[in-house]
Amino acid sequence: MTHTDTIVAMATPAGAGAIAVLRLSGPEAISIASSLFFSVSGKNLSEQKSHTIHLGHIKDGEKIIDEVLATVFKNPNSYTGEDVVEISCHGSNYIQQEIIQLCLRRGCRMAQAGEFTLRAFLHGKMDLSQAEAVADLIASDSAASHQLAIQQMRGGFSSEIKKLREELLNFASLIELELDFSEEDVEFADRAEFQKLISRITQVLKRLIDSFAAGNVLKNGIPVAIVGEPNVGKSTLLNAILNEERAIVSDIAGTTRDTIEDEISIGGIGFRFIDTAGIRDTEDVIEGLGIRKTFEKIEQAQIVIYLFDAEKFQISSSKFQVEIETIKNRYPLKNLIIVANKVDKLSESELHKLDVTLTGIEGSSHLLLSAKNGIGIKELEERLLEFVNTGALRNNETIVTNSRHYDALLKALEEIIKVQEGIDANLSGDLLAIDIRQALYYFGEITGQVSNDELLGNIFANFCIGK
Amino acid sequence: MTHTDTIVAMATPAGAGAIAVLRLSGPEAISIASSLFFSVSGKNLSEQKSHTIHLGHIKDGEKIIDEVLATVFKNPNSYTGEDVVEISCHGSNYIQQEIIQLCLRRGCRMAQAGEFTLRAFLHGKMDLSQAEAVADLIASDSAASHQLAIQQMRGGFSSEIKKLREELLNFASLIELELDFSEEDVEFADRAEFQKLISRITQVLKRLIDSFAAGNVLKNGIPVAIVGEPNVGKSTLLNAILNEERAIVSDIAGTTRDTIEDEISIGGIGFRFIDTAGIRDTEDVIEGLGIRKTFEKIEQAQIVIYLFDAEKFQISSSKFQVEIETIKNRYPLKNLIIVANKVDKLSESELHKLDVTLTGIEGSSHLLLSAKNGIGIKELEERLLEFVNTGALRNNETIVTNSRHYDALLKALEEIIKVQEGIDANLSGDLLAIDIRQALYYFGEITGQVSNDELLGNIFANFCIGK
Repeated sequence: MTHTDTIVAMATPAGAGAIAVLRLSGPEAISIASSLFFSVSGKNLSEQKSHTIHLGHIKDGEKIIDEVLATVFKNPNSYTGEDVVEISCHGSNYIQQEIIQLCLRRGCRMAQAGEFTLRAFLHGKMDLSQAEAVADLIASDSAASHQLAIQQMRGGFSSEIKKLREELLNFASLIELELDFSEEDVEFADRAEFQKLISRITQVLKRLIDSFAAGNVLKNGIPVAIVGEPNVGKSTLLNAILNEERAIVSDIAGTTRDTIEDEISIGGIGFRFIDTAGIRDTEDVIEGLGIRKTFEKIEQAQIVIYLFDAEKFQISSSKFQVEIETIKNRYPLKNLIIVANKVDKLSESELHKLDVTLTGIEGSSHLLLSAKNGIGIKELEERLLEFVNTGALRNNETIVTNSRHYDALLKALEEIIKVQEGIDANLSGDLLAIDIRQALYYFGEITGQVSNDELLGNIFANFCIGK
Repeated sequence: MTHTDTIVAMATPAGAGAIAVLRLSGPEAISIASSLFFSVSGKNLSEQKSHTIHLGHIKDGEKIIDEVLATVFKNPNSYTGEDVVEISCHGSNYIQQEIIQLCLRRGCRMAQAGEFTLRAFLHGKMDLSQAEAVADLIASDSAASHQLAIQQMRGGFSSEIKKLREELLNFASLIELELDFSEEDVEFADRAEFQKLISRITQVLKRLIDSFAAGNVLKNGIPVAIVGEPNVGKSTLLNAILNEERAIVSDIAGTTRDTIEDEISIGGIGFRFIDTAGIRDTEDVIEGLGIRKTFEKIEQAQIVIYLFDAEKFQISSSKFQVEIETIKNRYPLKNLIIVANKVDKLSESELHKLDVTLTGIEGSSHLLLSAKNGIGIKELEERLLEFVNTGALRNNETIVTNSRHYDALLKALEEIIKVQEGIDANLSGDLLAIDIRQALYYFGEITGQVSNDELLGNIFANFCIGK
């Protein structure tokens, strides 16, 4: 992974748009761009100040490819920390291809996925966890996942880790220094202070590790299984929730719903709705393949909504009771909400009877709604949000969302526990130092102070090209 | 169509990408952007020079939405001629929506399709034909359509029209001035010079009108009907041509082929391949619906390729001869190429016999090829290009590609012919002046010197939002 060459890629999505942006980064970025770009005012791009933007033409010999805006960023004041030129051209695929080809012919290389951000990391513009947050930020599609990514990108998480690592490193050095004077039996490292630090680190690590369960759910959306026969109104329900939320984003095209089926953001929190069939006839509860699938899906969920058609369904039917009991028995820890749909078709007295019957079912909550008429939607949303622990998010606490960080934190904790055991057993400095070094290694892996090509390759392969 | 308000829209396509660009234009663009954007170095955006770019955060109150780059363009030195701010944010849909919403809350309005370019036109940054070329440029997908759009955008076409319009306007004024002095029988307008100008205008108009047929074809692709039974190798042939051409654009994703079925660029010229069935049995040549469809498609084409399987097909069969004769008789003016595919399966002597037989067919040319092995593909491409008049394109002549312009030119020519007839009939100045004014009107309609809301509405409705 050398970065002595100059890379180029489109930074904007393919497709029809007014403009497209293409980015060059590397030692030759400005000189290559200057050889293609002819400023309207006759200025040479390579003589321009950093952070200035210029109108001109991209030319291939005498042939004009496009009228563009070119922005110059001089190292180290750019995204990558290298010289960068951004070219904003008209959004035609043909033009984009022509300009990229031209750059390649003048000595650029096509950037690999995430290579701009990789270079930013290698040039010290951000640490590894911040770089990972860039990809999370681009993928963020709810207020919660967005806030988590922004927090991580701004270094909230890694600055805490870095600080602990520095303190630990300081003690490690002192303890290692003692080894050089081992004949003299000195103690440079204050053992009481050291014990305090190890306790503090243990606490922080445990808190961060605990935050992962919530963080992961907030980032990826809370899985909700909807158990219900076809035609009980699942789609109508999802659309009703979506419309409620969409009122906020009004007429802007391209919300999540268009691309990810049944992922809906409620109050800024993503919910992933998992469609399942009903659990069907009593007799073959365990056997049927379809039913096994339903159970598998309930397994993945954090919340289970049992949706049924209030008009058609017989509360007293054995089917209903068996299904509810089966779910409660198999998954006593899942949050179960029994939802009666189409309640607008029921009379007052029927409604009351239904309400009483559902209240009688222990270990679950229930709701009467009409997805079609929007009755009860707001209540369902509030009920769903009750199950989400947004406290940490609200309090701006550091939350771990990345499983790579989670793994490293677990390993670091393991090493710190060994250190603690060493202290308790009055282990000699040289043995303590080994475990401390190992803990330091895992801390460093999170921020990228320790890294290798394979690790970097794995991380940046998940980026899109152009970032 | 007032433009005292400030508009906002995404300028880049929806979808996953590293960055997205959002554009504000109008009197409040800089002040609205300043109220959202907090520069990293603490600078106020509204105090920055035009054409500078700044790193900072978009904030909604205390909440950070994104780390972005903001570029300031001050009127009149911007695309629209107004104050413009471009915000380059991370390519998450959520972030884009949040920033747009924020702009709307601070007093922006969502831009309508083409509204940025409309404002550019209204502020005199470009004339109407140049504005139309912007949409053509974004849609361009071959070297030819691209060159035509660039030429038009750079004003090659409208500058010619404007010059003629000015000269004509000058004469119109002189002739109208004569009317004020009608009692005195003076002639301010030199009739000999005027006759010369009218002749010149007639010539130019005719040339431009003639260029439309070629221009339209170059812009939209040359229609080629492929007549042939299923399995004669049409797809293999198209893929063979595509591969040949794709070698040039190598590894860049998103070529035309992926989106528009069977539109292929050969030597920079677009060809639209129209698939048809064969003409089938002799008996029901005219009757069958399928055959009528085939004829309809041949009708649309400029070139007809009759493709057959050299291995299976009997040259001597009545079917072959009837089909060829039918095409030649019905469409004597179409360019017919008879193409024998799969010739790699034939022996030397069979090949020779086939070649002689095909040479014997008058009024067509023929080719022996093997799409699978790439034999004869280059020759077919050259043959296709021979039918395209690229002379005007090569010589950088003005070519009309827009049917609105074509219509206006036809109407202008009609009026100029009336003027000529008036001169020939020694018509009085006041009558001449009416026809001249009418011709001037149509000239002005092309460049937008004459325009109205309906005309502008129609033109800019075809633009994408954000341009």
